[in-house]
Amino acid sequence: MNTQLQPQDIIESDIVTEQDMANAIRALAMDAVQKANSGHPGMPMGMADVATVLFGRFIKIDPSDPKWPDRDRFVLSAGHGSMLQYALHYLIGYEDMTIEELQRFRQLGATTAGHPEFGHTLGIETTTGPLGQGIATAVGMALAERIANARYGDALVDHYTYVIAGDGCLQEGISHEAIDLAGHLKLSRLIVLWDNNSISIDGPTSLSTSMNQLARFQAAGFDVQEIDGHDFDAVGRAISRARGSDKPSLISCRTVIGKGAPNLQGTEKTHGAPLGESEIAAARQQLNWPYAPFHIPESILDRWGEVAVRGAAERRKWLNRVAAAPEGRAFLRTIEREIPASLFDALAEFRREHQTKATKVATRKASEMVLGVINAATDLTIGGSADLTHSNLTLTAGMEPIRPGNYAGRYIHYGIREHGMSAAMNGLALHGGFIPYGGTFLVFSDYARGAIRLSALMGQQVVYVMTHDSIGLGEDGPTHQPIEHLAMLRATPNLNVFRPCDIVETAECWEQALKERDRPSLIVLSRQNLPMARSENSEENLSARGAYILRATSEPRALSLLATGSEVEIACVAADKLLAQHGIAAAVVSMPCWELFEQQSPEYRKAVLGTAPRIGIEAAARLGWDRYLGEDGVFIGMHGFGASAPAAALYDHFGITAEAVVEAALEFAARGSSTDRTDR
Amino acid sequence: MNTQLQPQDIIESDIVTEQDMANAIRALAMDAVQKANSGHPGMPMGMADVATVLFGRFIKIDPSDPKWPDRDRFVLSAGHGSMLQYALHYLIGYEDMTIEELQRFRQLGATTAGHPEFGHTLGIETTTGPLGQGIATAVGMALAERIANARYGDALVDHYTYVIAGDGCLQEGISHEAIDLAGHLKLSRLIVLWDNNSISIDGPTSLSTSMNQLARFQAAGFDVQEIDGHDFDAVGRAISRARGSDKPSLISCRTVIGKGAPNLQGTEKTHGAPLGESEIAAARQQLNWPYAPFHIPESILDRWGEVAVRGAAERRKWLNRVAAAPEGRAFLRTIEREIPASLFDALAEFRREHQTKATKVATRKASEMVLGVINAATDLTIGGSADLTHSNLTLTAGMEPIRPGNYAGRYIHYGIREHGMSAAMNGLALHGGFIPYGGTFLVFSDYARGAIRLSALMGQQVVYVMTHDSIGLGEDGPTHQPIEHLAMLRATPNLNVFRPCDIVETAECWEQALKERDRPSLIVLSRQNLPMARSENSEENLSARGAYILRATSEPRALSLLATGSEVEIACVAADKLLAQHGIAAAVVSMPCWELFEQQSPEYRKAVLGTAPRIGIEAAARLGWDRYLGEDGVFIGMHGFGASAPAAALYDHFGITAEAVVEAALEFAARGSSTDRTDR
Repeated sequence: MNTQLQPQDIIESDIVTEQDMANAIRALAMDAVQKANSGHPGMPMGMADVATVLFGRFIKIDPSDPKWPDRDRFVLSAGHGSMLQYALHYLIGYEDMTIEELQRFRQLGATTAGHPEFGHTLGIETTTGPLGQGIATAVGMALAERIANARYGDALVDHYTYVIAGDGCLQEGISHEAIDLAGHLKLSRLIVLWDNNSISIDGPTSLSTSMNQLARFQAAGFDVQEIDGHDFDAVGRAISRARGSDKPSLISCRTVIGKGAPNLQGTEKTHGAPLGESEIAAARQQLNWPYAPFHIPESILDRWGEVAVRGAAERRKWLNRVAAAPEGRAFLRTIEREIPASLFDALAEFRREHQTKATKVATRKASEMVLGVINAATDLTIGGSADLTHSNLTLTAGMEPIRPGNYAGRYIHYGIREHGMSAAMNGLALHGGFIPYGGTFLVFSDYARGAIRLSALMGQQVVYVMTHDSIGLGEDGPTHQPIEHLAMLRATPNLNVFRPCDIVETAECWEQALKERDRPSLIVLSRQNLPMARSENSEENLSARGAYILRATSEPRALSLLATGSEVEIACVAADKLLAQHGIAAAVVSMPCWELFEQQSPEYRKAVLGTAPRIGIEAAARLGWDRYLGEDGVFIGMHGFGASAPAAALYDHFGITAEAVVEAALEFAARGSSTDRTDR
Repeated sequence: MNTQLQPQDIIESDIVTEQDMANAIRALAMDAVQKANSGHPGMPMGMADVATVLFGRFIKIDPSDPKWPDRDRFVLSAGHGSMLQYALHYLIGYEDMTIEELQRFRQLGATTAGHPEFGHTLGIETTTGPLGQGIATAVGMALAERIANARYGDALVDHYTYVIAGDGCLQEGISHEAIDLAGHLKLSRLIVLWDNNSISIDGPTSLSTSMNQLARFQAAGFDVQEIDGHDFDAVGRAISRARGSDKPSLISCRTVIGKGAPNLQGTEKTHGAPLGESEIAAARQQLNWPYAPFHIPESILDRWGEVAVRGAAERRKWLNRVAAAPEGRAFLRTIEREIPASLFDALAEFRREHQTKATKVATRKASEMVLGVINAATDLTIGGSADLTHSNLTLTAGMEPIRPGNYAGRYIHYGIREHGMSAAMNGLALHGGFIPYGGTFLVFSDYARGAIRLSALMGQQVVYVMTHDSIGLGEDGPTHQPIEHLAMLRATPNLNVFRPCDIVETAECWEQALKERDRPSLIVLSRQNLPMARSENSEENLSARGAYILRATSEPRALSLLATGSEVEIACVAADKLLAQHGIAAAVVSMPCWELFEQQSPEYRKAVLGTAPRIGIEAAARLGWDRYLGEDGVFIGMHGFGASAPAAALYDHFGITAEAVVEAALEFAARGSSTDRTDR
């Protein structure tokens, strides 16, 4: 870096050009990456010109109120270019983005994390980094805008969703699901700016792709344009045209990665490593940027500050419109996701009713019945399914589908797109004003993993409705029978995984999912009918405890049977047999949500688990169960993949039966204390 | 069904048309689904005509030798239409596909599983059902054909890969990754027949997509055609043209789902449920098919039998060419994946050398060094990375990339396509003749889950090279730091998950991966340098035991420190401190592969784990660890998502340090036997 120059030596020009504004981004990006000795300068330097036009001329944000509901949404789908966004945030004036934070790029606790993180840094609309998630999440945001617009009108809801995406985002499969859905639904407020720099990490993109992206997006129903991404007016014209289109837009911005670094620009060397001191010095020459590292002249800051001035004025106008609108207060309640108290009363009544009736249904059917109550009481919920509506049972009476150009409905036919659905749900939740839920088969959580993880990382209230939750789905066979999925999801931080055993627990789990405002919930449901497990009504939501004694013993507990979901029935039958035929008093513990159980007091957990020997029963992989089974515990479940046959035949075949539980209990009794801890 | 008709009543026509052949498929499909009361008749009935032309006129298979190497590969990507394939297999004469098996459709142990399963039924080239996997796997098969062709010439390798795909396959994101790669690499032997019936499960595809698929595939570099899928000659002309193209082909076959069922055809009602007795009777009328259920007239069977005759003749010609070709024997050894014994000698020498030198490198670097040995000794390995070549370190000296039209190389730039890469690796392995390995960051195993699961379900020797395996990757932050991924992968049946702690273990894990011929391996590697953990060389591959005592104690063991990968170093430092500063004799157990450890004898496992209290150390989620920790065990690892900072700062921040281990050990010692099992 050029240490000869000092800020005071420099005569700052009065005429600040967009080139100057863009070069400020470039300088901050290369300097911050250099100081951190880590990061990605190439993308911010390549896209600085495009970003300058987007933020300088168009975007509607107010840094003094980063969550103002009618702001434009900006998504940096190419999240590794985080310094682009941090530089912009500094220049525009977000209060948490100081020059010191830029100097602490990628250090512990800095607002300048390696990739943009929602909730960690003001003005970050979604966490990005895993490629393709940003563009797919933005589809949900753009959809949310249209749904809210359909409900509350242009005066209250009228904004755009802008995305900067890289080659990686467009190569990832999730981008296909996202653009197909966006094009189909004619989400014209979605504008994607593609950083078309022809470089990926391994080298030229021609190493791995020959895709004609313009033709591809056109095929998906996008308006497409291609421009020189370093021609400010061309960028401006393209964004203007895109804003006027009745389709979502792709603007291919031909750029030079690392532009400004004279010896490295245009190569993958600028992608993910500091440029180095000498190249940075050369870049300062090339960019005619004589300022010291992390110094931005006041004149340039002033010019950038106009973005905030414009945004603040827009926000004031909007506040006036909200105050004037009859539906203004309702809109604000919606944004706060205010659930009517009557909904929880209705759910309590629902539980009492079905407890009394001992309703026997599949828990997926129970979920549909619960959703009938929920969806009648609030319109915050936006339902959907990845083309399994009549299997997931996610559509309730009176819900109209959302159609291309008509956003008055509240059910989304997401298509055969589990990943795209999940990311879109993240976008709906992040936008604000909605509680999205969506269904697929539990086994296809595999396809949605990337987005489910982001729901958890971002703490978004998204509800996954995962039906067909075990070998109990029967004939579809091992490709459709989840085994490892409960373990995979339980291991995911900040995700509540519910597996209710009957209609009452299903209602409880849904109730809890509605109450968990900063966390996704994943409700795992059976295809097959399950009897009522509870013998009496509980006003308390017992599932909210995570686990509880479903059936206590009258004598001292000789054994504990721990189970979830459809295997609770097996545990209950086994407990009956053990007592009747062998005089063994076995308690049944239902464990619908391990995560919530872990949050209970040690005393509660101890009381539930007891000190008697334990048998765990779940038609899934054992991994994770040993925590509850103890060293001598027995697990009755799956030890490999499933098979294709009717459900009852499979339970027999894999030995997940009350008889097997009884047998294990008798062996237990016979074995006594001689158990070898490694002989499991 | 029409029970009035008996086979003997029917005068079987001498002139068998393709329509008769196709109707045989329709009848078998609707009858089998009806008998099972489960399954999907719509697709087989809709695609019966296309399949008749493909199998009747073109396909090169010999049911008497289903694994003949130069056969055409047929992939039913729309795997729910399994009865299409089972009907074909019966008609063509695969010995395991009898009429009795068709009558046992979807029953336990039948060859007619719900979805086609590789290894379970003869002639099934890959397991399908999870949508999109088939087409993506087929890309790997078509690529394998070209690579083998480049090595062994047209005389030995000259076949096509045909795919039948549905709307679901084309909506899934993985299809985008697959077709982009196939188009780029100009895999002209890949021919995709799209069952374009405009129906998905929820109803018309217009509910969820407006994609112009022809334009989309054209953008990806495919030759595209659209035909009436019920016009036999049009289908024949289209396949002929596709076979002659220098690009991969998409043939859009406009079909009527459930064609032949007069009241239900063309609707989603035929997709996934039996047609019902009365509709089947009506279909028999409409199809002019007077035969009893499961009865196919001899004349039609004879006509179908010509496919096998043609295939057998082709196979005999091929056998003659193999016998005549100088490279014939080498080709057969390749197909058998015969690894030269010298390779294992070289790996043993590699281990000795680096043990002696105490080489300290990141395990990803160690993996690169090991791969240098492997790739020099055998050309069975086909390497690649999802655009992280220089991070995964998967490319070794002298490996040339495979390029469009030039398949002489052995390294694949898979692009930013983790899912597509993994499915393509499955295809390379299934084709035969290759051991594919491919790299990405461990966290992006999320994106590849669907295909990794199929590697395991199909028992394919695919090696996943997953680097950047923990918070140790540092600044990229929580989006890039795996937490739950080890649990997710360990819970997956039939998958060996390796996490070596140094260069010697890395070599051992690779050696084991090469020996596991019927199982995928996933090798999890550090970004950061790791010191040599072993104090002396072992001729035995200790990692093949799954876990072993890395450092024994001279005094009786007071404590066991269990760790994997980069945390073994922490365990060793802690053990030193405990002995030196506190006189506590702690053994260190390295556990590079839990799955292999579970396969050891109870005596071995007991000896390794010991009876002393245990502390587990792994920079990942706890789930699964309790199996080894026992009721009083302590876990030092991650309890939530990571953060963005240099690696050392993160280990400190999250308390995964030798100091934390020492502290836990001292608390342990102080606590004695008063531990509350629920207070963990």
